[in-house]
Amino acid sequence: MLGTPYVYIDYEKLKTNITGMAAFASRLGIKLRPHIKAHKMPEIAHMQMAAGAAGITVAKLGEAEVMFSAGIKDILIAYPLIGEAKMQRVRRLLAQGCNLSLLVDSEAGARMLADLAIPGGIDLLVKVDCGLERCGLLPGQGLEEFVRWLVGLKNVNFKGLLTHGGHAYACSNYAQVQAVGRGEGELMVEAAASLRKKGIAVEQVSIGSTPTARSGGSVAGVTEIRPGNYVFNDATQIALGVAGEECCSLKVRSTVVSRPAPNRAVIDAGAKVLALDQGAHGGGGVSGFGLLENPAWTLTRLSEEHGIIEGSSLPEIGRELDIIPNHACPVINLATTVQVSTGEIWKVAARGEVR
Amino acid sequence: MLGTPYVYIDYEKLKTNITGMAAFASRLGIKLRPHIKAHKMPEIAHMQMAAGAAGITVAKLGEAEVMFSAGIKDILIAYPLIGEAKMQRVRRLLAQGCNLSLLVDSEAGARMLADLAIPGGIDLLVKVDCGLERCGLLPGQGLEEFVRWLVGLKNVNFKGLLTHGGHAYACSNYAQVQAVGRGEGELMVEAAASLRKKGIAVEQVSIGSTPTARSGGSVAGVTEIRPGNYVFNDATQIALGVAGEECCSLKVRSTVVSRPAPNRAVIDAGAKVLALDQGAHGGGGVSGFGLLENPAWTLTRLSEEHGIIEGSSLPEIGRELDIIPNHACPVINLATTVQVSTGEIWKVAARGEVR
Repeated sequence: MLGTPYVYIDYEKLKTNITGMAAFASRLGIKLRPHIKAHKMPEIAHMQMAAGAAGITVAKLGEAEVMFSAGIKDILIAYPLIGEAKMQRVRRLLAQGCNLSLLVDSEAGARMLADLAIPGGIDLLVKVDCGLERCGLLPGQGLEEFVRWLVGLKNVNFKGLLTHGGHAYACSNYAQVQAVGRGEGELMVEAAASLRKKGIAVEQVSIGSTPTARSGGSVAGVTEIRPGNYVFNDATQIALGVAGEECCSLKVRSTVVSRPAPNRAVIDAGAKVLALDQGAHGGGGVSGFGLLENPAWTLTRLSEEHGIIEGSSLPEIGRELDIIPNHACPVINLATTVQVSTGEIWKVAARGEVR
Repeated sequence: MLGTPYVYIDYEKLKTNITGMAAFASRLGIKLRPHIKAHKMPEIAHMQMAAGAAGITVAKLGEAEVMFSAGIKDILIAYPLIGEAKMQRVRRLLAQGCNLSLLVDSEAGARMLADLAIPGGIDLLVKVDCGLERCGLLPGQGLEEFVRWLVGLKNVNFKGLLTHGGHAYACSNYAQVQAVGRGEGELMVEAAASLRKKGIAVEQVSIGSTPTARSGGSVAGVTEIRPGNYVFNDATQIALGVAGEECCSLKVRSTVVSRPAPNRAVIDAGAKVLALDQGAHGGGGVSGFGLLENPAWTLTRLSEEHGIIEGSSLPEIGRELDIIPNHACPVINLATTVQVSTGEIWKVAARGEVR
């Protein structure tokens, strides 16, 4: 044992989260394609596949390459790939037998993929912006024209529409989150219907974030959900009302290393372990930089290697503390390994894959 | 080549930064002990040693172990080490011949090190809080009593005082930064004088952050400075007036991957490459999440893998962009390798050492 800080994963809670989402998707008869950027570990991806996932979602080629090497065959890269270096890596993955689908939201991006001239074509989903205002096309404002153009492009297969209701993270309660989720699902189902009216086959209607997976996935016509964070949950999901503390399977274990003042304790978990997230996409609701076990304590500041706790009856030097991070995904991205409650140590195999 | 995003280091600028700080310390006849948490690379530590550094500073045992394996012998761990696992690693480093010094700011911490009963004792510096309100003792409010107690403790050698004027990052201009630096140096020199009056030998008076290294280091009686970030500089140093854009040796290279709206460009550098820092310790002055090459463009939002640029005359899909990050240290901590202007690729060897 090297001491603290380290990431601790409760295996039973992890498994409950995985089977819970899988059961939801199965009950509705829709596909679950979890986003593995949250965990970056083949061990967890295999648990998700064993629980019935249709395949996985990744954010970049590096994650796809690691997961494919670990035996996961059905991979969606939910990110617009641009540039010659990326195209060569796409070609290699396809040549190795990966069942790859990709996302496009521009003619430039689609042409690069078409130019690979892959026999049988590359499976593509078109990114729709359902309110996050990040990537993607808008229904009624360019989406339909783009899909019509894409369907006519050689060497690509238009498979359907994809969106991400990440603006749910800006909500202040679960009722708002559910409304965003329903809106996400309805917008996508309508967009698909309008394409079908023009004779275009739309096989996939893929939505989802962890907050909106259930409300969005319940809209009839949605075919697939892609939550990621749900395997762990975190203080942001708690603040949104999406999960309770008992559903948080990931914690950061740290040690009090200094007690320089009566109202200040310093722990060895700083921004290089916990990251600086305080809610995504304008979302708030979290106070401080992580949830502590005692409500009288607040993690008010992070340096790179120090966390400052203020409050009353503060813990003494040497005491170990568990922290539910504000956002579990960047915490995993900072950890080399995680300590699992079973006694195993898992390597964060796709960590460090920055592209 | 794997494509973007990646960290790019301009070797000539890096070298100029290293030799500039070394020349400053040499001119004043003080020691330079650079903090390697900024770069985590033996290549750069060796450049610093070759330029005249007296040794290095690290934040954790993992960094010390990597740097010692790479041939750096004189290492200060500027962090209070607590707990049995850490004590065993200290013992191992000492047994291997590392010339190690450590920091303490509590009786509990000092006793753990003393209990190792290292023949000849362990060299210790006492952490002083000069205004950051993180770790450390206050002169006139416990510091002198603690040092007197420490001097009487067996198996440890009190070598001097150490502080970090990190509150300089909360300043809004360089005149304020210089005032913090002078205050940092003066407080430490006075604290050392008051101990010497009581017959206690104080060999080291160690101060410094990148912003305060020059103003604090110029105070007569200071013996050592420990800047880290100066090898790279970043948008925070620019905002503080500490460095100009021409001194920034580290940039993140990214590609425009989506142009979903006339006033929005999306790049492939997000929080998992750039980190979310917007100034440290209450400091501001930076606008957005990194400095772009065109002042008409602002990096207004980061998702994990997306950067959103708003402004006018935005770049088209496929265009590569260089970003000066707000804070270079966490960027290095997120990168597996860096591309150097010489053509070499350096591994961030101490990255992933979270403890």
